[in-house]
Amino acid sequence: MPKPERQVLVCVNSRPPGNPKGSCAEKGSQDLFDRLKALLRERGLDARVMANRTYCLKHCSRGPVLAVQPDNVWYAGVGTDDLVEICAAHLEGGRPVERLLMPDIPWE
Amino acid sequence: MPKPERQVLVCVNSRPPGNPKGSCAEKGSQDLFDRLKALLRERGLDARVMANRTYCLKHCSRGPVLAVQPDNVWYAGVGTDDLVEICAAHLEGGRPVERLLMPDIPWE
Repeated sequence: MPKPERQVLVCVNSRPPGNPKGSCAEKGSQDLFDRLKALLRERGLDARVMANRTYCLKHCSRGPVLAVQPDNVWYAGVGTDDLVEICAAHLEGGRPVERLLMPDIPWE
Repeated sequence: MPKPERQVLVCVNSRPPGNPKGSCAEKGSQDLFDRLKALLRERGLDARVMANRTYCLKHCSRGPVLAVQPDNVWYAGVGTDDLVEICAAHLEGGRPVERLLMPDIPWE
């Protein structure tokens, strides 16, 4: 691929069971990442959109957390059922998915 | 912190010794991340710049790899000695550090 036009960051940070912060991993973010990678391939987006797993992106209680750069758009509580909409509306259409936006509150 | 103005992604991906791809971790990227976090605090940038560790960002042979978003600026072969310049020129001054830019070649 050339330099990616967009980058989708998926937090797959994990914490030990019982940690009060919880983690995106325990909410299924590795499966979310795998499904996102597959979708990018299926829709021919993988040549211009790079998906990357990250460690903690903060806002742990609102995970799984995704960030789309260079749009600086952050999503909260993303499930696998949301990925088609993120691909179609945002990555293909350039319109962020409003209902999934991280609320504008101080970062945890 | 409020929603971060900028995000510095640092690849800390590791691979088993002898893997032909090598990895950013074996080139000291965890130390690089720790030093970057300290510098952001020292310079008062931590309220608006978020540093995040990531898994593989590609271009493994050119690691350690850093990306600064939402500028979509990618750096190659970054050492701890380069971090002050990245902070001063790019994160404070808005001018990417030309000598460290990832070359414009197909992504590995």
